[in-house]
Amino acid sequence: MRPTITAFANSPDRGRGLARDMRVRWALEEVGQPYDVRLVSFREMKEPAHRALQPFGQIPTYEEGDLALFETGAIVLHIAERHAGLLPADANARARAIAWMFAALNTVEPPILDREMASFTERDRAWYAERVPMLEERIRVRLAELSSRLGDADWLDGPFSAGDLLMVTVLRRIEGSALLDALPNLTAYIARGEARPAYKRAFEDQLAVFTNRSPAGS
Amino acid sequence: MRPTITAFANSPDRGRGLARDMRVRWALEEVGQPYDVRLVSFREMKEPAHRALQPFGQIPTYEEGDLALFETGAIVLHIAERHAGLLPADANARARAIAWMFAALNTVEPPILDREMASFTERDRAWYAERVPMLEERIRVRLAELSSRLGDADWLDGPFSAGDLLMVTVLRRIEGSALLDALPNLTAYIARGEARPAYKRAFEDQLAVFTNRSPAGS
Repeated sequence: MRPTITAFANSPDRGRGLARDMRVRWALEEVGQPYDVRLVSFREMKEPAHRALQPFGQIPTYEEGDLALFETGAIVLHIAERHAGLLPADANARARAIAWMFAALNTVEPPILDREMASFTERDRAWYAERVPMLEERIRVRLAELSSRLGDADWLDGPFSAGDLLMVTVLRRIEGSALLDALPNLTAYIARGEARPAYKRAFEDQLAVFTNRSPAGS
Repeated sequence: MRPTITAFANSPDRGRGLARDMRVRWALEEVGQPYDVRLVSFREMKEPAHRALQPFGQIPTYEEGDLALFETGAIVLHIAERHAGLLPADANARARAIAWMFAALNTVEPPILDREMASFTERDRAWYAERVPMLEERIRVRLAELSSRLGDADWLDGPFSAGDLLMVTVLRRIEGSALLDALPNLTAYIARGEARPAYKRAFEDQLAVFTNRSPAGS
């Protein structure tokens, strides 16, 4: 059954692939599952029809027959459970790959999102310059721990998995930052993710939404 | 195989059951799985032996034969997949319960943790009084959305699940706050969780660690 996901009609990242539909698109491309996309405006996201699918008024959602899912982690896990390619067959290795999914979303992403949110909501506050080093130190600690665990491996635990997929998309939020550039094994890790054909297809598809949206068609 | 989890030797919450081992203990009690606990000090948590189990130097960890897991969400999911009682049998209902697990950890908990962290690290800063309302507004939005979805149901989606288990433990972090007390269906939801026999057993066990640790044995 061909699933339908939702994505921003006007992504605030202007097609840089940082919106969370990118994670679901990439997972679907990795497993070779075609899908449809329904674009929603910021206004529609907060209306009852969308909230029936996503109680917190966000994207993406995932609809497949009778099933309606929200939360990117849960959607990627659902895809990974139903198709080969995103989770190892060995039970223990599978559990560890799922641990990396949670680690990406719960341990590594929160300080990165906090830094990002402060740059949107507190940039004009008197305290901003003083808070930024505190926020960046929290990111630095997590990145150092992640870098240390990754070492010179290609992926976090054996072959590429849904854990790597989520971790790469989380790290991409600070791609090009001094924080990340200080850890070459992490920048190489992101580059390996971005080099995957499934990543490239997903990226092009989400970028096309932004490009086509432009009145000039550019 | 009897698993071993790690927990704080000296929990900073003084036995209030807010440390993340409580989530794993509760899950193990729900499914009737006995377990052992290894207590670790703050110093030990940051040492290589513990980081081999938990790359970010945190608790809990979960060891079961050859398997070593970290991330509370992944551990609770692992327990829920191997025992009856925490996930519905129906495939779609199961996927939705997992979505609530991710929602608890990724959507509801982050603003609650941010508020908590600010109270620890920014209380003496000049900007603290001005930031608190910003932090609380983010929590208020999420709680209102959650309250609206829960309505007058007992649990988030059908019978009690691992999603409810994680959501109740997340909400307990702000138990007694005006933010939460403004939403009686959420306070009743927490009370239903806390009334479960498995919750009570888990709570008593983690409290005993704190009580026994006290030099006075009190």
